[in-house]
Amino acid sequence: MTELENCMESLITIFHRYADEDGDGKTLSKKELSKLIETELPAFLKCQKNPKVVDDIRKDLDQNGDSKVDFEEFLSLVVGLSIACEKCFVLHEQKKGKK
Amino acid sequence: MTELENCMESLITIFHRYADEDGDGKTLSKKELSKLIETELPAFLKCQKNPKVVDDIRKDLDQNGDSKVDFEEFLSLVVGLSIACEKCFVLHEQKKGKK
Repeated sequence: MTELENCMESLITIFHRYADEDGDGKTLSKKELSKLIETELPAFLKCQKNPKVVDDIRKDLDQNGDSKVDFEEFLSLVVGLSIACEKCFVLHEQKKGKK
Repeated sequence: MTELENCMESLITIFHRYADEDGDGKTLSKKELSKLIETELPAFLKCQKNPKVVDDIRKDLDQNGDSKVDFEEFLSLVVGLSIACEKCFVLHEQKKGKK
């Protein structure tokens, strides 16, 4: 498999690793999403000063208001974080270029 | 790094591996996008019967009409493919469960 194919497979297996915990394998419950964020995004969580950040993320992601997070909603989180990280990456590369 | 962090890093490095080829490191030109799809998604491309699929994808992704694909537009491709793959994954798991 190529790196991009591996990456897409990872996204699916990570989501299901947590979503399958309480029997409903299609969505992340509040508890499952908290566990996913705490386990998979510790560096991100460490930077957050708001103690309710996980709750806020869940509310943001839960676009259809069913208080669960499905795979598409989970991908919005990954996309949002990746876009933020990519901006930092570009800035960092520009700084390196100037040196 | 966790699996999800690795995955986000991969998305950024894959995009820049191709976007940086023609000097403009911020977007994928037509040629760069073709190369990315041909190299990173060979299994997907093999299933497509439409010879213009890469052109069609570029037009779909290029939401701001500048005939280039930026990182956010590239992520739409990854999200679209991941959602399609995840649906197959769930169906496959359901079939396994019934056996």
